[in-house]
Amino acid sequence: MPVATIEWTDGKLCLIDQTLLPNELRHIECETVEQVWEAIKVLRVRGAPAIGIAAAFGTVLGIWDSDATRYSDFKEELDHVTDYLATSRPTAVNLFWALARMRDTAAAHQELPIPALKDRLLAEAQSIRKEDQEICRAIGRHGAELIQDGMGILTHCNAGGLATADYGTALAVMFTAREQNKKIHVFADETRPLLQGARLTTWELMQAQIDVTLICDSMAAQVMREKRVQCVIVGADRIAANGDTANKIGTYGVAILAKYHQIPFYVAAPTSTFDMTLATGEDIPIEVRSDEEITEPTGKRIAPIGVQVYNPAFDVTPAELIAALITEKGIIYPPFESNLKILFQK
Amino acid sequence: MPVATIEWTDGKLCLIDQTLLPNELRHIECETVEQVWEAIKVLRVRGAPAIGIAAAFGTVLGIWDSDATRYSDFKEELDHVTDYLATSRPTAVNLFWALARMRDTAAAHQELPIPALKDRLLAEAQSIRKEDQEICRAIGRHGAELIQDGMGILTHCNAGGLATADYGTALAVMFTAREQNKKIHVFADETRPLLQGARLTTWELMQAQIDVTLICDSMAAQVMREKRVQCVIVGADRIAANGDTANKIGTYGVAILAKYHQIPFYVAAPTSTFDMTLATGEDIPIEVRSDEEITEPTGKRIAPIGVQVYNPAFDVTPAELIAALITEKGIIYPPFESNLKILFQK
Repeated sequence: MPVATIEWTDGKLCLIDQTLLPNELRHIECETVEQVWEAIKVLRVRGAPAIGIAAAFGTVLGIWDSDATRYSDFKEELDHVTDYLATSRPTAVNLFWALARMRDTAAAHQELPIPALKDRLLAEAQSIRKEDQEICRAIGRHGAELIQDGMGILTHCNAGGLATADYGTALAVMFTAREQNKKIHVFADETRPLLQGARLTTWELMQAQIDVTLICDSMAAQVMREKRVQCVIVGADRIAANGDTANKIGTYGVAILAKYHQIPFYVAAPTSTFDMTLATGEDIPIEVRSDEEITEPTGKRIAPIGVQVYNPAFDVTPAELIAALITEKGIIYPPFESNLKILFQK
Repeated sequence: MPVATIEWTDGKLCLIDQTLLPNELRHIECETVEQVWEAIKVLRVRGAPAIGIAAAFGTVLGIWDSDATRYSDFKEELDHVTDYLATSRPTAVNLFWALARMRDTAAAHQELPIPALKDRLLAEAQSIRKEDQEICRAIGRHGAELIQDGMGILTHCNAGGLATADYGTALAVMFTAREQNKKIHVFADETRPLLQGARLTTWELMQAQIDVTLICDSMAAQVMREKRVQCVIVGADRIAANGDTANKIGTYGVAILAKYHQIPFYVAAPTSTFDMTLATGEDIPIEVRSDEEITEPTGKRIAPIGVQVYNPAFDVTPAELIAALITEKGIIYPPFESNLKILFQK
């Protein structure tokens, strides 16, 4: 049922060009690492888990034609490729996680002949993709325990199948609840500036026959006031050791609104999204994107020429606003710092 | 310095077509009440005070060609015209206030010959416009006392000269602070769905050489977290006797965010915006507008065909979130219920 966001076919990385949805469902094929870099940069592929998977396959494309015969030469090329891919987007930690895993895999198999090592790296990228599918299902299974029949659920941005290799993270919970025959109604924030909610989340939920209503970001508070939603579920791009969560700009505001209305605010994310090297969210780098994303939605100018613009792509929701973290290993409740420490020591 | 939003020239109502700003500054001339109704309905003229003024002149246009010779016949036509104009938009109370004032004026001068009564009604519309100019200046003068040099100010939607006959309400405070040589920096929420902040507020502030930065509605929380703003000032469409304030959708959310960040949230509005017949904001009718405003910003579709949409045009900010009401008669602090009672008994 979920859309095939990322597939590896005949030595090419096949992606849905998400910038064209929902008006057009077009697949693109990446044959070079530069094409993958560009696809991540301009959000043809997006969502923290999907970025990680794309980067893993991008690494394979980047070293596939290497004519190195010694590991040291090969490693130099590999580092060059992963360093390059790391510059595509700064906030989602899954990107760096996947690149590190590819480098570690090479290091662990450096005794292999280079052609066999290339095959091993491709197998690792395939594993990352496969594991992500299983992780999505597990997140959905755990998260669905929080969903009762008849609930209204608000979500922000797109943490669905398009953001992963399978069911998504936040949307996995909804897909699973639906499979369990729970009746739910989802409110999708449009998610300016790039409208992932309007374009992608509504589309995915409609494909899955889940009842969904599109609202502007500015309407979330009113929808809560009218008691139309009983919980909020979002994805994440990076989660610090204390539970502070970086996610799409606007998430932090939604969390404050949920707190004010006493509605639980949940974050659904795989453990690869956790960055236990960061004590708090304060050190998470926040990508600032171009003015035109705000001043020219859909390509048509809506603001005066020369106006100053501030366009942070992410914000950090402090742990105090989060009711629980939904991971593939289970639901983590506060206090996050100690409970996450236990989770990652397992 | 303020733009001439609404002018009466040669028996016609001349308006800036605000739907075309900032890309095009075009004036339209209304010669019939139907044209005025349409201009209000589709937001060519918008903002609570401006709607009231336009409706007053619309009333004049509606009865100007009356060939009634008796007051009773004239009154019937007048009621028909004002009832019609009252259907243009449901939330802004200034609309009903202006229409009632026109009817009251006719009733008070029913002894006049009809041609003289028409002139009297035109004079009343002119008075409403003139008074609004003075009210804007007074709001600016009172509100500027709250502004300190170097402050960052966040505003939502457009409560500027374009929403009134002169300096505006929320923006009047900024224009006046600027005249007093206070350095301020304004953050303007773009204000989806109709983008009045992106299109109009930035344009007006740039014309007045006030430092302004455009953000998406979803970025207001982040801007507050970064301590870039020290207060919020917005306009209002209707204020109940307890201070509950109806204003553009998204205002309520901004007020919650301000509370969470301990930033004062101010509402600037003329006393004509107060509806003392309403005990609380719960009874304020909220206009729900068309799906296309959300799904087709700038005319290009950004959401799947057939998606459900919820598009409330206003929300109600409860009085508990409002630090003060800035009126032409002074600044009103909580407790609003008793302080407003005193104000309106004067």
